[in-house]
Amino acid sequence: MSDSIAVPTHWYNIAGDLPVAPPPHLHPGTREPIAADDLAPLFASGLIEQELSTETDIEIPEPIREVYGTYRTTPLIRARSFEKALATPARIYVKYEGVSPVGSHKVNSAVAQAYYNSIDGVAKLTTETGAGQWGSALAFACAKFGIDLEVWQVRASYDSKPYRRFLIETYGGTVHPSPSELTEAGRKVLAELPDTPGSLGIAVSEAVEVAIGDAAARYTLGSVLNHVVLHQTVIGLEAVDQLRAAGETQADVVFGCAGGGSNLAGLAFPFIREVLRDRADTRIVAVEPAACPSITQGEYRYDHGDIVGLTPLLKMHTLGQDFIPDPIHAGGLRYHGMAPLLSHTVELGYVRGQAVEQTDAFAAAVTFARAEGIVPAPESSHAIAAAAEYARSLSEPEVIVIGLSGHGQLDLPAYHSYLSGELG
Amino acid sequence: MSDSIAVPTHWYNIAGDLPVAPPPHLHPGTREPIAADDLAPLFASGLIEQELSTETDIEIPEPIREVYGTYRTTPLIRARSFEKALATPARIYVKYEGVSPVGSHKVNSAVAQAYYNSIDGVAKLTTETGAGQWGSALAFACAKFGIDLEVWQVRASYDSKPYRRFLIETYGGTVHPSPSELTEAGRKVLAELPDTPGSLGIAVSEAVEVAIGDAAARYTLGSVLNHVVLHQTVIGLEAVDQLRAAGETQADVVFGCAGGGSNLAGLAFPFIREVLRDRADTRIVAVEPAACPSITQGEYRYDHGDIVGLTPLLKMHTLGQDFIPDPIHAGGLRYHGMAPLLSHTVELGYVRGQAVEQTDAFAAAVTFARAEGIVPAPESSHAIAAAAEYARSLSEPEVIVIGLSGHGQLDLPAYHSYLSGELG
Repeated sequence: MSDSIAVPTHWYNIAGDLPVAPPPHLHPGTREPIAADDLAPLFASGLIEQELSTETDIEIPEPIREVYGTYRTTPLIRARSFEKALATPARIYVKYEGVSPVGSHKVNSAVAQAYYNSIDGVAKLTTETGAGQWGSALAFACAKFGIDLEVWQVRASYDSKPYRRFLIETYGGTVHPSPSELTEAGRKVLAELPDTPGSLGIAVSEAVEVAIGDAAARYTLGSVLNHVVLHQTVIGLEAVDQLRAAGETQADVVFGCAGGGSNLAGLAFPFIREVLRDRADTRIVAVEPAACPSITQGEYRYDHGDIVGLTPLLKMHTLGQDFIPDPIHAGGLRYHGMAPLLSHTVELGYVRGQAVEQTDAFAAAVTFARAEGIVPAPESSHAIAAAAEYARSLSEPEVIVIGLSGHGQLDLPAYHSYLSGELG
Repeated sequence: MSDSIAVPTHWYNIAGDLPVAPPPHLHPGTREPIAADDLAPLFASGLIEQELSTETDIEIPEPIREVYGTYRTTPLIRARSFEKALATPARIYVKYEGVSPVGSHKVNSAVAQAYYNSIDGVAKLTTETGAGQWGSALAFACAKFGIDLEVWQVRASYDSKPYRRFLIETYGGTVHPSPSELTEAGRKVLAELPDTPGSLGIAVSEAVEVAIGDAAARYTLGSVLNHVVLHQTVIGLEAVDQLRAAGETQADVVFGCAGGGSNLAGLAFPFIREVLRDRADTRIVAVEPAACPSITQGEYRYDHGDIVGLTPLLKMHTLGQDFIPDPIHAGGLRYHGMAPLLSHTVELGYVRGQAVEQTDAFAAAVTFARAEGIVPAPESSHAIAAAAEYARSLSEPEVIVIGLSGHGQLDLPAYHSYLSGELG
């Protein structure tokens, strides 16, 4: 796994680089553009600054780069066996974030968020998590920077997939199933829908409510917001350089899965920068689950990030703040909205959406696992399926980059269900 | 994770380098030193050659190096946060094999064994597995080289930890709980002990029996034998170079966990080579579980590798071929014997054994996880516990190397049990 590419020194902020400025977040009460002060009860000051920044290159502080250095750069793998299995003339590269301590890209933002909160002297962080990738990443980061952590995990995942919950506990964090009786938001949902599998929108409301009520606590979000997307750009910054080092002049198409959007945006935005600078004409495909198709079926409008309406209004592709998707295995893709920055690039034509059925995602993932040895996260499998379909359709060589956001070793029961014919 | 150390081009065979030649394996019928022909029904020809070789440097074939290159070199991590947590003056380095596709060192030999069998035109491999590290590694390798795989998994692990079974199935392999009704050996044990948790010794008998009865099949063993130990020396060869690149003149002590012995030997033998060449005076500690203490409590004598007595007689530290250890979480350490080459180096004074209680292993592992972010495999945790105890006892700086043979993400229920106070 030797690699001559260095860990990036700066994150890339596409907000300062697009021909049309992205629509601002709005205050949920006044519907005016939100200001730093409005966000202060929720987020660390360094993160608020990033959320509102239009600087294109933002320096990564040394303590964060130090932790990045323990697992980055992550590999860009030429998937020759997968190409052979697909009988495609394409050259397929996979940017693999599963080598991080918790096995997913989520660590990239978790480390940054824990760091900026530690600078502000924050004693406790609250957050939501779906399948648990974000919760476990933040638990790792909180252990690193000495901060307590309380996590609300979507009940569907809490019940059926306890491993990541155990991982959060091993790092020292506390996990509650969401909706919970611990918050007003949770109690309200439980009163109406006692058997609900939960949703990220509900879990966000619970974690926000607790953070607002505790002066020593702050809230963290694992996707959607500008600062989260910013932190994830280390993925794409490395990939652009690695692809060039591999002798390719450009990526023709980049496929990534999109739930809240930070994984796809983190991978794609540095490739879009190449397009903006006329150095490439790369197309980007945001692959979402058919069960939660915010880009392909949602509306582009202002909506809340949570079910209760505590968060700022975000201009985004949304299925509505109260949308509760089926409990598909790709728990990380069960979110009603899409990162505003990503939604904006979709509107500007740099990114297109594509929805994939869960069983097609697993079929492609099994082919990939047998060819390349890596069992993909169910989330990432959606990108693999879309890329595989495209690669199979080609009669001339093209360069395809797939974002492999994490490994699926904690999702093996889902593979077992698929292989046993129990899905779809 | 950039690293200037190259993947080794040769494995290191300590059998040709020791001042006293290791005792030969004996034929189970004649008790004469075993010959290549005796092993032909069981193993691929290339592996038999390695099993009996006294050449010190054995070239790694290109197709194996190619697969190694997808995940090696593995990182040597300076565990500064762990040092701080232990308040030790020691400089602790961790050689981390968990970045392999299945998350453990077992892939190093699985790839080699599948390759040599593919050269011989073998259609099917059989094997045993405990916690499933070896089974999943071989399933990965068989998928790579187009070979069918049938695995007998120790029932204690099969029942309580299905994730690695699902992983084997995802790669396309078949898994049976052992003892099974599919073999004479299994039926015999079940008749006497219907509720047995199983053991590696029983599972070996079953896999060997099926391989012997099928001309197109061969058997593979994940530890113990000389050729397996040989393949694992890539770990130590890299670590010696990486430690030097980190500016250290030598390792003072190397700690590794020892079940069948291939992990410890693979890490340690290249360090012992430095001792043999008068370039270092490194001490080696083989850490075993208190529940299965073959070095510290066993006898050094000829014994079978399996319960029925189908395998060659091996001169080793053994608790007896019919010893069935308690179902501790470190399933990979539940083996009655110890690699003959490793046992021989113990007898020659290059290696000493140390037994560790399971709860002490988990306590050290949780400290390590919270400090370094990596959740260790329960097996590796034994080495971490012994190293931590030693590091805490130091008043002067020393250089400690710990073999972190794999990650524990598929063993998180064991951590949950430990954190809930359900163990010991």
